[in-house]
This record gives sequence, structure tokens and C-alpha cells, in this order.
Amino acid sequence: MPRFDQMSKTELTELYADLRRKYEEAAGLGLSLNMARGKPAADQLDLSDELFSAVSTGKDCRADGMDLRNYGKLEGIEDCRTFFGEMLGAPASQVLVGGNSALNMIFDTLMRAMVFGLHSYTEPWMGQGKLKFLCPCPGYDRHFAIAEALGMELIPVEMKDDGPDMDAVEELVKDAAVKGIFCVPKYSNPTGITFSDAVVRRFAALKPAAKDFIIVWDNAYAVHDLYDEGDVLLNLLSEAEAQGRGDMVFAYTSTSKVTFPGAGVAAMAASAENIAYHKKIMGFQSIGPDKLNQLRHLRYLPDMKAVSAHMQKHAELLRPKFETVLNALDAEVAPAGIGTYTRPRGGYFISLDVMDGCASRVWKLLADIGVEMTPAGASFPYKKDPRDRNLRIAPTFPTLSELKKATDLLVLCVKLAACEKLLEV
Amino acid sequence: MPRFDQMSKTELTELYADLRRKYEEAAGLGLSLNMARGKPAADQLDLSDELFSAVSTGKDCRADGMDLRNYGKLEGIEDCRTFFGEMLGAPASQVLVGGNSALNMIFDTLMRAMVFGLHSYTEPWMGQGKLKFLCPCPGYDRHFAIAEALGMELIPVEMKDDGPDMDAVEELVKDAAVKGIFCVPKYSNPTGITFSDAVVRRFAALKPAAKDFIIVWDNAYAVHDLYDEGDVLLNLLSEAEAQGRGDMVFAYTSTSKVTFPGAGVAAMAASAENIAYHKKIMGFQSIGPDKLNQLRHLRYLPDMKAVSAHMQKHAELLRPKFETVLNALDAEVAPAGIGTYTRPRGGYFISLDVMDGCASRVWKLLADIGVEMTPAGASFPYKKDPRDRNLRIAPTFPTLSELKKATDLLVLCVKLAACEKLLEV
Repeated sequence: MPRFDQMSKTELTELYADLRRKYEEAAGLGLSLNMARGKPAADQLDLSDELFSAVSTGKDCRADGMDLRNYGKLEGIEDCRTFFGEMLGAPASQVLVGGNSALNMIFDTLMRAMVFGLHSYTEPWMGQGKLKFLCPCPGYDRHFAIAEALGMELIPVEMKDDGPDMDAVEELVKDAAVKGIFCVPKYSNPTGITFSDAVVRRFAALKPAAKDFIIVWDNAYAVHDLYDEGDVLLNLLSEAEAQGRGDMVFAYTSTSKVTFPGAGVAAMAASAENIAYHKKIMGFQSIGPDKLNQLRHLRYLPDMKAVSAHMQKHAELLRPKFETVLNALDAEVAPAGIGTYTRPRGGYFISLDVMDGCASRVWKLLADIGVEMTPAGASFPYKKDPRDRNLRIAPTFPTLSELKKATDLLVLCVKLAACEKLLEV
Repeated sequence: MPRFDQMSKTELTELYADLRRKYEEAAGLGLSLNMARGKPAADQLDLSDELFSAVSTGKDCRADGMDLRNYGKLEGIEDCRTFFGEMLGAPASQVLVGGNSALNMIFDTLMRAMVFGLHSYTEPWMGQGKLKFLCPCPGYDRHFAIAEALGMELIPVEMKDDGPDMDAVEELVKDAAVKGIFCVPKYSNPTGITFSDAVVRRFAALKPAAKDFIIVWDNAYAVHDLYDEGDVLLNLLSEAEAQGRGDMVFAYTSTSKVTFPGAGVAAMAASAENIAYHKKIMGFQSIGPDKLNQLRHLRYLPDMKAVSAHMQKHAELLRPKFETVLNALDAEVAPAGIGTYTRPRGGYFISLDVMDGCASRVWKLLADIGVEMTPAGASFPYKKDPRDRNLRIAPTFPTLSELKKATDLLVLCVKLAACEKLLEV
């Protein structure tokens, strides 16, 4: 495949006609394929089938001197706090284990900041005027949606290969109206990159003007390596604590993509002071999380070694999917000079930048023939990609054969849109 | 047992000496008894042991055209919405099924009201100045604690035998700063009374000055009858909707005291408009509740008939406990004229009014000999019982023999405190 920008107009016109013909063929097939959802496939969920029977009777439900079926233990089972403490790099005492969703814990943290103040010593965000939140992008749409719903102005920050543009971040936090930043620091959604040690250290050393600035450290893919050699993320919480700045950091993770997305266990870690303060407010909200599901998880995955062995099984199912997409892009898109993309070593997404101004067109072309992708722009604040070039590929949910078809059509449409742009059709 | 107020000073002094001696004896026993906690006992939890194996494999987890292990279904499984709709008296479409805690859903509703506004057409409570909340009392301390945490002024309203003093409620809601009222309308915590039809109709016809006034209708004991003939609660939601005032009503319930307090399923019902609006905001908070626990519950308790049969087993365990307390009070407290109390036909509590000014003293006397009761005043706003007479008895958690001992000591201390008061010791 030659570079499109080196082809003559005639060659390009012929190619375009050929691509159109293939597209019309595909349109006739009545396909229904989906590369939109960052969800585990059924075969991945089957890996955790033993979770259902991990706790089979109430006689087996004692821990921490209590009957786990009953009320209480707002902070979560102790062994579970230790477990997630290892995953998040925090002592058990600085971990709260919750329900089935880290997103829920993030939302609740920000709601508490709105109504009560982020720290015991700061004022509620509500009433402080128009606030702003930093959104490294492409990034996770559900993060941005929370800040937007809370009435914040979303400030885009460029996501680089080693993390957010820290020069920009350091500059932007001089504005006291900037109250936080969203990060998926390992196998970032959607680019799949992991923040470098240097970036993490610059986060730890951040001196925001706002005393109630929060780094939402959503470590959703903490253990989600595709290869034996996984990326290693520096521990932001301990780095920040070493600088006396631990109060900025709220870290989250869950087993949503370890066991079951709908019925996993989520946890947060923060400074001792923040944990005490947030737990106090949570005490008005809840008498305690679902400790039986926590116990089930502990029995099934007692430690990080068990998690690691379990995640290798996920990787075996996911690697061929990621490689299917990457191989097709390597063969047809990169050499044509019509797109660049990331090569994640973990996580759930591949981020594809097509030619400027072409992402919405590619999305539309695919949607019209029954291939659903995450809408172009979804990974940007206000769903607006200023260059209209980014597409998020989610290869995990379809079967391998569906994914092959979907990827072929993605490549076809990337080429089509490029031809249209170059030919000004 | 003669009435204390008809005894001579000599008789009373002799009685007091005798009671003191018995008290000192009890003090020497090193007891540790607990009537403080409204928790099911272990034998009640054992009733639901089959819940653990109600869903045993992922192959069994399809409903609503989806794999329940995966993400999604923010509103809960459809059959679960129907189930809780029956419990709350609402169509399935007006029900959201959540996680393990109705308290959590109540708190979240009020947080949404604070930050986003209670309805799509009203302003956030925050920024509206000092707000007030009506607290029928004695009532549920965790309700009052939420409103207090949110910075509201707690306005006490007298709880009568048929519900809150509606004359007072109708007068108080003329103040636009009054934003809501907490109700446990069936087998109320702690008095155990059920709101009469007349009271429910007056709630439905309420015309609060605040457009964003909420009736927090916490139907925690909807199916928790102690006897075959249970109290019947009129359906507030449909009554209010008939008056065009459905938007005021947010109803909640859970299986916390049906299956497991720590791992049950909770739900809320409201007007169609409120459900749509709150669900939209919840869409920022969560991708969906734990649907596997919902499925477990559906399999184990598929309908109200199954629930009713199950609750009869609870009743068999609880009736002897309630009757132990009531028999002792009937024998020793009522005839002595030193206390009045409720005779609940369901729920988890008995409310005891001792002589004015004696509740804290009774609590302290009991605490000193190892019998833990809910602190006097806990059922009142700011934990202050203006007459210092109310004690909440929670008979469910101790074993029957522990409860017998604790009740004997309760009666002893009620008498002691009465003697002290009458003798001015």
C-alpha cells in the first residue's frame, strides 16, 4: 500500500472507485458489529465462573469479628482493604472498599467536594463560582461527563506518549478555579499509554493554586497487562506524600475488568486525613458496602499472585484481538500515511488518529453499514475533537471473527475517508 | 405492682432499697447484653442461606436481552423493578433498583437535590440559604443525621399513634425554607405505628410553599409483619399522583431485613418525571448496579407470595422476642404508671416512654451494668429529647435468653429511675 499523498489523482480516483465498490458490497451484507464498548467478552467473564460459588453458606461469612451478612464495616473487610491497598500502592488503613463501581466512588468523591468540601479544611466547591477541570485528551468520556454535569468548564490538555502535557498542567493549575484533573495513568483510556515516572513525579510535585485541587487517579487498568512484561506505574500517592502533598491524590480501582463489570468490587485510596474525612461523610450515606461480594472476591482472588495468574488468562483471550486490529492497521493504514495509532501493552482500547477532519466521516461510513464505533470526538471535552481525527477502537467485546470483519471495514472506511479528503469529493 | 405515685414515701423508700440491692447484684455479674441495634439475629439470616446458591454460573445470567455479569442496566433488571414496584405500589417503569442500601439511595437523592435540584424544573438546594427539614419524632436517627449533615435545620414534629401531627406539618410547610419530611410510614422506627389512611391522604394533599419539597417515604418495613394480620399502608405515591402532586413523593425500600442487611437489594419509586430526571443524573454516577445480586434475589424470592412466606419465618423468630419485652412491660411498668410504650405489629422496635427526665438515667444505669441500649434522645433531632423520656428498644438481635435478662434489667432500671425521681434522690 503506497502513501496516499504520493499517489497521482488518477491512481487515487481509481482506488476510490474500488473502495466504494467494496463498501457497497459490505453495505449489502446487513452487518451488525460493535467495536464501541470497552467491555469484556463472554469468554472473559466465564474465567470467573468460580466466583459464583466462592461463598456458599452464611456459616462461612465471618471476618473482622463480625457476621458479614449483617450491617456495618463501612470501610470494607480488612483483608479486602489490604488487597486493594496492594493494587493501589497504599496501606490498608488508607483504603476504603466499596460497591461495584469505581466510577461511583469518583462521582461520590466529587459530590462530597461540591457539598461538603474536598478536605476537612476546605470549603464546598459549590458557591465558589465557575470552576474548571483539566481533561487530558483523548481521555475517558465518563470522567469528562461528570465534571460537565457538575457545571465545570472542561479544559483540554494534550495527552502525550508519556502522559498529559505537564508543562500545560503546571501552568493551568496556577488558576485557583482549576479544581482537578482526571487521569487513567496506566493503559490510559483510550490511548493505552502509561504515565512515565517523570510525569508521575511532576504530578507529585504539583503546586496548584487551589488548596482543594484533586488528582482523580483512576487506575482502572492496574493489573490489565496484555503481555508478560507489563508497564510499571510509579506510585503517585506515596510520591506525593513524600512531598507533603498526599492530600491531592485520590486513587481508584476495581475488579470490573478482572471478574465481572456489573458485579465487581471497587476501592479508593487517599491520604489518611482524606480517608478519615470522607469516611465520616460516607457514614451518613451508608451503613456499609456489600461485604459478601467482597468476601467472594477475597476467596476467589486472595492476593496479587492469584490476580496475576487470572489476568494472564484474560491476556490470552485479548492479545489476539489487539493484534488483529494492529496487524490490519500496520498493513493498510500506516504505510498509506492515512493514520497513526497507539500500540497498548494493556488496557481495553487502541486510539487511532485518522487524517484531520476525517474521524466523524469514518464513524458515519461505518455506522451506515452496521459497524458501531464509539462516536468520533467522544474522548474529548464536550465531545469535540478539535482536529476531528481521533477514533477509539474497543476490540475486546466482539468475537475474534466479528472483530476481523469489523477491522477490515474500519480500514476500508479510513481509506475511503482519506480518498474523499484528498480528492475533495 | 401498685402505681408508684400512689405509694407512700416509706413504701417507695423500701422499694428503692430493694431495687438498689437487685441492681448491685446484677452489676456484679459482668454482663454484656445489647438491645441497641435494629439488626436481624443470626437465626434470621440463616433463613436466606439458599440465596448464596441461587445463581451458580454465568450461563444462568441472562435477562432483558443481556448478560447480567457485564455493564449496564442502570435502572435495574426489569423483573426486579416489577418486584419492588409491587412492594412500593408503583409501576415497574417508576422504579429504580439499586445496590445494597435504601439509605444510600435516600442520601444520594438529597445530594442530587443539593447540587442539581430535586426536580428537573427546580434549583439546587445549595445556594437557597438556610433550609429546614421536618423530623417526626421519635424517628429514625440516620434520617435526621443526613439532613443535619447537609446543613439543614431540623424541625421536630410530634409522632402520634396514626402518624406525624399533620396539623403541624400543614402549618410548617407554608415556610418555603422547609424542603422535606422524613417518614417511616409502616411500623415506624421506633414507635412501630403505621400511618393511617387519613394521614396518608393529608400527605398526598399537602401544598408546601417549596416547589422542591420532598416526602422521603422510607418504607423500610413494607413486608415486616409480626402477625398474620399486618398493618395496611395506603399507597402515597398513587394518592399524590391522583392529586397531581406525585412529584413530592420519593419512596424507598430494601430487602435488608428480608435477606441480608449487608447484601440485600434496595429500590426507589417516584413519579415518571422524577425517575427520568434522577436516572439521568445517576447515569453520570454509575454504569449500573450489581445485577447479579438482583438476580440472586429474584431467583430466591420471585414474587410477593414468596416474600410473604419468607417473612412469616422471620415473624416466628421475632414474635417471641417482642412479646418477651411487652409482657415484662405489661407486668411491671404499665401497672406502676412509670412508663408507656407501643405495641408494634411489625418492624424492629418498641418505643418506651419512661417518666419525664428519666430516659438518660435509665440508659446510664443499664450501661453501667453492661446492658447497651440506643442512647436516650437518639430518636430526636440533634439527639435531644425535650422531655428526656424516650427509649428505643431493639429486641431482635440478642438471643431470646439474652433478651429476657436484658428486659428484666431494663424494667429494674426504669423502676429505679422512677423511684429516684419521686424520692428526689
